[in-house]
Amino acid sequence: MKFVINAAGRQVPEILNGEPQVPYLGVGKYRPTGRKHAPVIPTNADYPLDGNKTVENLKEALLKAGLRNGMTISSHHHFRNGDLVMNQVFDIANELGIKDLRWFPSASFPCHAPLIKHLENGTIHHIEGSMNGPLGAFSSEGKMKGVAILRSHGGRYQAVQDGEVKIDIAIIAASTADPFGNANGVNGESVSGLLGFALADSQYADKVIVVTDNLIPFPCIPWQIQGNYVDFVVKMDKVGEPEKIVSGTTQITKSPDRLLLAEYTAKFCDAAGIIQNGFSFQTGAGGTSLAVSKYFGDLMRERGIKARFARGGSNKYLTDMLEEGLIEYILDGQTFDLDGVRSMRDNPRHVATSPFTSYNYHSKGNFAGIVDVVILGATEVDVNFNANVVTHSDGQLLHGIGGWQNCLFSKTVILPLPLFRNRIPVVVDAVTTLCGPGELIDVIITERGIAINPLRKDLIDATKNSGLPFKTIEELKAEAEEICGVPDKPEFDEQIIAAIKWVDGTVIDVVRKLKKLSL
Amino acid sequence: MKFVINAAGRQVPEILNGEPQVPYLGVGKYRPTGRKHAPVIPTNADYPLDGNKTVENLKEALLKAGLRNGMTISSHHHFRNGDLVMNQVFDIANELGIKDLRWFPSASFPCHAPLIKHLENGTIHHIEGSMNGPLGAFSSEGKMKGVAILRSHGGRYQAVQDGEVKIDIAIIAASTADPFGNANGVNGESVSGLLGFALADSQYADKVIVVTDNLIPFPCIPWQIQGNYVDFVVKMDKVGEPEKIVSGTTQITKSPDRLLLAEYTAKFCDAAGIIQNGFSFQTGAGGTSLAVSKYFGDLMRERGIKARFARGGSNKYLTDMLEEGLIEYILDGQTFDLDGVRSMRDNPRHVATSPFTSYNYHSKGNFAGIVDVVILGATEVDVNFNANVVTHSDGQLLHGIGGWQNCLFSKTVILPLPLFRNRIPVVVDAVTTLCGPGELIDVIITERGIAINPLRKDLIDATKNSGLPFKTIEELKAEAEEICGVPDKPEFDEQIIAAIKWVDGTVIDVVRKLKKLSL
Repeated sequence: MKFVINAAGRQVPEILNGEPQVPYLGVGKYRPTGRKHAPVIPTNADYPLDGNKTVENLKEALLKAGLRNGMTISSHHHFRNGDLVMNQVFDIANELGIKDLRWFPSASFPCHAPLIKHLENGTIHHIEGSMNGPLGAFSSEGKMKGVAILRSHGGRYQAVQDGEVKIDIAIIAASTADPFGNANGVNGESVSGLLGFALADSQYADKVIVVTDNLIPFPCIPWQIQGNYVDFVVKMDKVGEPEKIVSGTTQITKSPDRLLLAEYTAKFCDAAGIIQNGFSFQTGAGGTSLAVSKYFGDLMRERGIKARFARGGSNKYLTDMLEEGLIEYILDGQTFDLDGVRSMRDNPRHVATSPFTSYNYHSKGNFAGIVDVVILGATEVDVNFNANVVTHSDGQLLHGIGGWQNCLFSKTVILPLPLFRNRIPVVVDAVTTLCGPGELIDVIITERGIAINPLRKDLIDATKNSGLPFKTIEELKAEAEEICGVPDKPEFDEQIIAAIKWVDGTVIDVVRKLKKLSL
Repeated sequence: MKFVINAAGRQVPEILNGEPQVPYLGVGKYRPTGRKHAPVIPTNADYPLDGNKTVENLKEALLKAGLRNGMTISSHHHFRNGDLVMNQVFDIANELGIKDLRWFPSASFPCHAPLIKHLENGTIHHIEGSMNGPLGAFSSEGKMKGVAILRSHGGRYQAVQDGEVKIDIAIIAASTADPFGNANGVNGESVSGLLGFALADSQYADKVIVVTDNLIPFPCIPWQIQGNYVDFVVKMDKVGEPEKIVSGTTQITKSPDRLLLAEYTAKFCDAAGIIQNGFSFQTGAGGTSLAVSKYFGDLMRERGIKARFARGGSNKYLTDMLEEGLIEYILDGQTFDLDGVRSMRDNPRHVATSPFTSYNYHSKGNFAGIVDVVILGATEVDVNFNANVVTHSDGQLLHGIGGWQNCLFSKTVILPLPLFRNRIPVVVDAVTTLCGPGELIDVIITERGIAINPLRKDLIDATKNSGLPFKTIEELKAEAEEICGVPDKPEFDEQIIAAIKWVDGTVIDVVRKLKKLSL
């Protein structure tokens, strides 16, 4: 395998899974030269004139779609840990003796652990998509035949649009659909809110299969997925478990340290002049994030101001703010609880977005750059403000990138992080895996101090008299090490088990096989 | 110019405006072989990170978009006769000394008559798009440099998608937009309802310019046009006159003959078993159509049944039925009055469609085939049920195709027509210009009798005891000629002034220059 040092100083291979790669060249430096992927022109003459594309079952749909060895099968993850479809898809493929499939989900979850047997028996060659939990751990042990490729939500759209990943068969699970293939995730029993992660799949895949447990007469409105892109429709008993779409917690943290992080974050934003009438924000899910949202709400109420919009993942805290009139619009890529789903269904100001509108770097702009402030997480940050979201400090690949890389283009990027987790410092010399370049990360907020990226002189100036506990990033690191000691670094083999793509499709880093798991 | 006889027996050229053509091969017979048009991959790096794409004025936008000789400039016609933008565009082009532009509107109207000077002075080489009124008459006289190419709404989407027409610069006038380029026609002052006709333009044009007179902060919701496709945004004083979007009349006809047509149509549909719970219909605009809608409503009310959906063009009659609960959804491609606009803005069951969802023949089906019954017009029909919608019996090209060809794929196609107009028979031996093949046209309803296409034995059987006045199409023709005499045929030159495309991009007929105008 030939390697090259990319613009971030990371050693990355020139070829992955047999396909040539471009190394990361720096933010905004890679210039695409080609044209978008051009699907074959279909004709209505090949589709039933009455619009009825239903077939008997999933197996028949896969056979009619021409399932064969080596194909790329895609799926969306709006059901998160409640997906009931993809394990069945690969069970059928295995039963049919199909080998070497590439699974291209927008993300995978612990519910997909049963697919490990299909990775072992050769039905699935490798996975390209975020792996949360068991599949990530399986990969970390070097057991997957191919190299996992991890992309951001926007990067996944970009890869499909640009023809880097050609999807043979897309599987789109929907809580409601009609026989023509129009589908949504907002009506019916098995709701997942929206289907934006499947947009690229519907537009660019050769064959598209919609599966639903609520087949209604045409038209299925809203048609988040348009039937004009769909080949087959399958009715199943149950496609997903809505109660498992929850991301993280739905409760505001009670931890004093986490509450302090949230308070610092809100105070910082206020001191920096971000919280003003018409501003926009993305706080994310999880206990700390919810607390930040709450503090933002308190400030807005106190001052009688409104946010023009908030970015989802949505949850009850955000939808309450929308209903109270504190937020004019929620632009939502993923509903994180059933209040989010209900609001998206009933409130025209709660808008379903897609990775195309929000995150695709290979379009004529996207709206990530319009968001005034975004609050993100990380597993590690380093003294150059680089951050890692996919591996733990122990070197295990346990998380996906999500929209995280894409959000780094927002006007101000803040990472509120505990200074250490389980006595492992979060601020380190160099991140284990580079996911986001430090030049895009503006502020690290810990319970023991706040470090502003020196590039952001404007923020330093604006907040200098705020009374907040500013420190340098090196001071934060030293303080963490004073408390926890300097932890052992994970030891890696040569074998590359995953590659991390930047938002433009270039390779920013790789993850290697762990020599041994630290227990 | 070399000619070939197409499957409809019409002589069509092999080359038009320098580009090779496929002759019409029959319904569903032409199989596309290529791939969809693939736009160049853009990168966010070339667009302002804060999302602000506004430029000073239309001229600057055109210059930045690289306007030069021979380019294709597209526009939509949602403002119908109230467009205030396109005359300005070509005035600017003329002022800049640009020549030989191809104008590719979704339709043109009498308000565009000032463009005749730019056809004469060489700024515009030719128009490809429906020409209602003066531009059509100008073409009929053979005065346009190139050959006009007329397409249905679906055919226009197909041509752009398939790369038959490559748009250099798309102009999209919108009643509301944000600086990122998100736009709609439903909010603001200069409303046109929706922007579906501009969808293909936004997706496939090299450069996209949004012009608006109501620029609001991001996000413009709904984003009927997505800013991720947009290059430049221009604020103007006024982009269109909403009061001129009205198509035909907004009043039910008072003519006894027309009322009789409407009554026969409703009775026929009822006798044929079409009007049942959950059915779907498209009646169109115009006095007779409104009367048909009214009769449908009366029947539904009487029987306590609902239509699953109605296809727009929407108007007050349709929106009243939606609000009364007689119709579950309006699927609307074009609002034909301000009640239509209001309803689309406020009622989630009034759904904006596009030629992609409703009409594109080169996709995985479209929903025209799902509509139970469609009521259409025509300027002429012949004894083989072929119909003409673009030329009058005097040979003048005065109308566009609109969605008419696309609607022929509905389950039952009915043409209620007066047997003669101004003492010219409407039923003729052979239509002057073939726009729709007779095999797709099921029923001709006149005030003096109803002819069912012999291919539709099911309809003949179902309605034989209805007491309606059935006749053969030949009988209708004879009756018309008995009253009016056999009219002189228009005399044509050799020169081809326009070509009529079928829904699949093949050439179904041409229109030739008139030798003299019959006055």
